[in-house]
Amino acid sequence: MTNKIVQALIWKENGLSILDQRQLPSVLHYEHYTHSQGVAQAIATMQVRGAPAIGIAAAYGVVLSLKQHYGTTPAWRSAVYADIDLLANSRPTAVNLFWALDKMKAIIAQESTDVLAAATACAIAIHLEDQTANRKMGELGAEVIGHSKGLLTHCNTGSLATGGYGTALGVIRSVAARQSVAIYADETRPWLQGARLTVWELAQDGIPATLIADSAAAWLMKSGAIDWIIVGADRIASNGDTANKIGTYSLAVLAKQHGVKMMVVAPTSTIDWTLENGNAIEIELRDSSELLPESYHTPDSLVSAWNPVFDVTPATLIDALVTERGVVLAPSTRAEGIARLRNA
Amino acid sequence: MTNKIVQALIWKENGLSILDQRQLPSVLHYEHYTHSQGVAQAIATMQVRGAPAIGIAAAYGVVLSLKQHYGTTPAWRSAVYADIDLLANSRPTAVNLFWALDKMKAIIAQESTDVLAAATACAIAIHLEDQTANRKMGELGAEVIGHSKGLLTHCNTGSLATGGYGTALGVIRSVAARQSVAIYADETRPWLQGARLTVWELAQDGIPATLIADSAAAWLMKSGAIDWIIVGADRIASNGDTANKIGTYSLAVLAKQHGVKMMVVAPTSTIDWTLENGNAIEIELRDSSELLPESYHTPDSLVSAWNPVFDVTPATLIDALVTERGVVLAPSTRAEGIARLRNA
Repeated sequence: MTNKIVQALIWKENGLSILDQRQLPSVLHYEHYTHSQGVAQAIATMQVRGAPAIGIAAAYGVVLSLKQHYGTTPAWRSAVYADIDLLANSRPTAVNLFWALDKMKAIIAQESTDVLAAATACAIAIHLEDQTANRKMGELGAEVIGHSKGLLTHCNTGSLATGGYGTALGVIRSVAARQSVAIYADETRPWLQGARLTVWELAQDGIPATLIADSAAAWLMKSGAIDWIIVGADRIASNGDTANKIGTYSLAVLAKQHGVKMMVVAPTSTIDWTLENGNAIEIELRDSSELLPESYHTPDSLVSAWNPVFDVTPATLIDALVTERGVVLAPSTRAEGIARLRNA
Repeated sequence: MTNKIVQALIWKENGLSILDQRQLPSVLHYEHYTHSQGVAQAIATMQVRGAPAIGIAAAYGVVLSLKQHYGTTPAWRSAVYADIDLLANSRPTAVNLFWALDKMKAIIAQESTDVLAAATACAIAIHLEDQTANRKMGELGAEVIGHSKGLLTHCNTGSLATGGYGTALGVIRSVAARQSVAIYADETRPWLQGARLTVWELAQDGIPATLIADSAAAWLMKSGAIDWIIVGADRIASNGDTANKIGTYSLAVLAKQHGVKMMVVAPTSTIDWTLENGNAIEIELRDSSELLPESYHTPDSLVSAWNPVFDVTPATLIDALVTERGVVLAPSTRAEGIARLRNA
């Protein structure tokens, strides 16, 4: 089963191949990048998306910049830093991007190393460690869930969003490997990651899945069909407040009202220890054209759109935070529980 | 302003012109029907939709059947009843459809009347009375709301869904005529009535509107931007439980958690006095192809969809029920309040 899982990112000697997720599920097309600017553009235009995958892509982007500039002039570092700035400005919310760039910057700052070789090794390690972390989280999450009649997920958090296997979708894969369970996916407007990516990924693995409109989730909960909602994260504050795809906050409020439990699955690279809580997380507002039919795209149109693509779920609404370093149950009731993940 | 409002249904001497709402907002096209079967098909395929508009269209459909069959043979009634059955089976949830057909059946049963003339007059009266009811509800609802900073609506409940002006959108029009107010509309998946119809109708009237993804409603509420959610209804039980477009229940639960108030606006023809509560309301499940990308439409696909297009909001989550016969505040706390609408 594992080997069949499609990869969002494939690193090759001469560059990074990125699966163009905008064309899924109808077309499976990889674009090959040999320069970091192309990678930054691929992130900004959502050819590749998902917090962990963005971090990995950015790390490889820095390697491509080093391939171009390292040692060419005494001032090669400023060229590389300019490329890093471009990568850092590609998407604002997912912290994994900045975490990966910080790791690369630490290598670049070293004087007595083969920086290109070290950076390449680091990027590959970030990629592989993410896969290992996903497998670990899958097992940990499945154990927390135990027997389940039904699971609901939002957005796409699978192989396409990570180094492979997935965060929330990794847990779902692990639960499905243990028992028969009904799996529901929100279609996830406006970009339809659920409809285009999540159910497609599951079907590739031979796992049946049922798609629902985002607004049907509450009615599904009321029907008693699900006992857990499982989502990923783009940034988690020190207190457990979690920024994730728009609609996650809605699901968390609804889950609490229906006795459904809420699980967040993310590697510790998603935790932003500099933030005390979720209030300071920058929420990306994307173009209104993602929501508005084309006939409204006129300068004098009275119709506009508000298109925040993330929201923040307070830790008080989260029942389990699953990371590769362990699980924190009810994180809002145990601040030390999250803190212990920091140096685990 | 009034005369500019687009009409979903235009009755003419020789038939019924129905605006094909599936083609909006890019194409404004009326299809002209001279037989009731065509009207039934137009309702089933959602060329015309919205509970009050469906009821009016069905009444005109019966008139078309009478034009064809009345007096042609002694058994003309059975031909008309067959057409009425077809109309009754076009959509299951909106009770206005059955209410209008019952009115027409009462006329058809009369022996000593010009049934065609009486039925025509009755259909036109249903249409005109709906417009009058909408204006009345608009004023009543606006008075309940008083000053508002922002309103959110779901689906389309405007001229396109009614005889003209609208139910929930009628209230919004009336509020907007009195004061400056921010108006938000859910795009309303899967059919996008909000994106294609509601903001389009408002813009036609010169009223600015902001579209949001359905799943962004909770985040909008959390931001403090709105104080009322205003929706229509497809069927209301005797206790105030309300069936309406999928996602309404979700909004009602979320509204309660955010201190936002919930208003249902519907003519009394939407109240099904035969139902004690909302549990017995039949919820229409539409085809999964409305949600699933085309590449999943294969016989062996592991991907399915659950597509209920309505849900039921318990009366306990409704702060105001606005009808043409008056307003009932907090209907779950005053059963006699709803009952008094019956014979008002």
